[in-house]
Amino acid sequence: MEQVSTARAHGGTQGVYRHRSSATGTDMTFSVFVPAHDEGEVLPVLWYLSGLTCTHANVTDKGEFRAACAKARVIFVAPDTSPRGEGVADDPAWDVGQGAGFYVDATEAPWAPHFAMWSYVTDELPALVAAEFPADMARQGITGHSMGGHGALTIGLTFPDRYRSVSAFAPIVAPGQVPWGEKALGQYLGGDRAGWRRHDAVALIEDGARVAELLVDQGADDQFLEEQLRPELLADACAAAGIDLTLRLHPGYDHSYYFVSTFMADHVGYHAERLWRTA
Amino acid sequence: MEQVSTARAHGGTQGVYRHRSSATGTDMTFSVFVPAHDEGEVLPVLWYLSGLTCTHANVTDKGEFRAACAKARVIFVAPDTSPRGEGVADDPAWDVGQGAGFYVDATEAPWAPHFAMWSYVTDELPALVAAEFPADMARQGITGHSMGGHGALTIGLTFPDRYRSVSAFAPIVAPGQVPWGEKALGQYLGGDRAGWRRHDAVALIEDGARVAELLVDQGADDQFLEEQLRPELLADACAAAGIDLTLRLHPGYDHSYYFVSTFMADHVGYHAERLWRTA
Repeated sequence: MEQVSTARAHGGTQGVYRHRSSATGTDMTFSVFVPAHDEGEVLPVLWYLSGLTCTHANVTDKGEFRAACAKARVIFVAPDTSPRGEGVADDPAWDVGQGAGFYVDATEAPWAPHFAMWSYVTDELPALVAAEFPADMARQGITGHSMGGHGALTIGLTFPDRYRSVSAFAPIVAPGQVPWGEKALGQYLGGDRAGWRRHDAVALIEDGARVAELLVDQGADDQFLEEQLRPELLADACAAAGIDLTLRLHPGYDHSYYFVSTFMADHVGYHAERLWRTA
Repeated sequence: MEQVSTARAHGGTQGVYRHRSSATGTDMTFSVFVPAHDEGEVLPVLWYLSGLTCTHANVTDKGEFRAACAKARVIFVAPDTSPRGEGVADDPAWDVGQGAGFYVDATEAPWAPHFAMWSYVTDELPALVAAEFPADMARQGITGHSMGGHGALTIGLTFPDRYRSVSAFAPIVAPGQVPWGEKALGQYLGGDRAGWRRHDAVALIEDGARVAELLVDQGADDQFLEEQLRPELLADACAAAGIDLTLRLHPGYDHSYYFVSTFMADHVGYHAERLWRTA
């Protein structure tokens, strides 16, 4: 692992790192904020998965998470959203290809050789974080924004024992039912929609996946709300499954980091309360 | 004034605006955050002047000021750092020309036609803000970073009755004594160093300018500390003049927005306490 940059921030260290990923077969860049802590102490980890077009840098610059993570003493990890670089497949559109990995392991051409973001985020990067940072991997939570909210929900629902807390900002809750998801899952996983269901939070819940509770914030003036995000589908699935969903609709807020940053401290606090709880 | 964008954030509105400036003879872009407020209510204004290479966008994205301004109920205005565009003089260097206006009215060629940032920031833009936003112009404070810290200090010292509170992050306190300032003031104001003194905080204080108090934060690991910033010169001048300077040196912090954002809430709180005080 190569250190790209580090800086003191809010009493801790904000770093950017690069490593060779065996999952994606590319170099991958990610950021980690480590709050002040005692020598030898380990801290809970909050994973933040970013949305379409983003890298680690968007939330690192605009997310306003550091003050809250410093106060709550939680490590914040922000992976990239896809493999990148020469030799990696891409598409002129911004909703598929580089910057749009959708947190799946692609099975279809031309994506399969590098687009393994599920394995990267759930397996390879956690092992690296555990090895390189003062992280208590028994205390992990996961959140994300938009496509990254989709990733956080599907990963959290798949590994309920690993992630003690799951939340999302304006997530794509049912990719199998909306244009962004139909396009991306179709390209990455092929035309058999049955194979999409384990990458669709609503379908996962319908198929029996369970967590105790979820927190979702959503801007009511989000331009993607009705066509792409459709939080009511998650509300219905959670109600039917007995999952305690807190879904908050915020008048006036859009899909941007102005929205995410406004509610970031709430989410960090939500995770911290659950992650620091005595096991 | 044209509205470039607005978004709800932290209960208020973060906007970006553009207008034709008569001071600079160019279009100028700036950002304003207006916290939630009652109909007809006016709020104090905190000016934030940015540093070399920046536009309004750097602090708007990375400054982490909105939560604090929302809580303190203070409007935050971030101007650009120079005129820009075709027909505006520039230099390949990043420390003079576009992005490096130094908050002076240039008298020398090729800068004089457009580089009028002193008049823009102290006269034209305040009038526009007063007209277009719910701003209580009897309650203004000013801060800034690096070159913008220089601007905040020199403007605050020049108009002590207009700005009730003055602070700075890693300011250039004595441009007449450091390479950045000698280069920029020489190019903008010409070789007569006597004319530089009213654009040099330390010289202004030596020449009799007074404010009751100043707050300055500085990273101890700032790469520009010893050659360009030299806060000890401000400390000496304030001590001799009886100005109550709070100068805080922070181990480990650099010159970046990771530093600025860490101490931003402190500065907003410092200004708010003074701006909301009964007159």
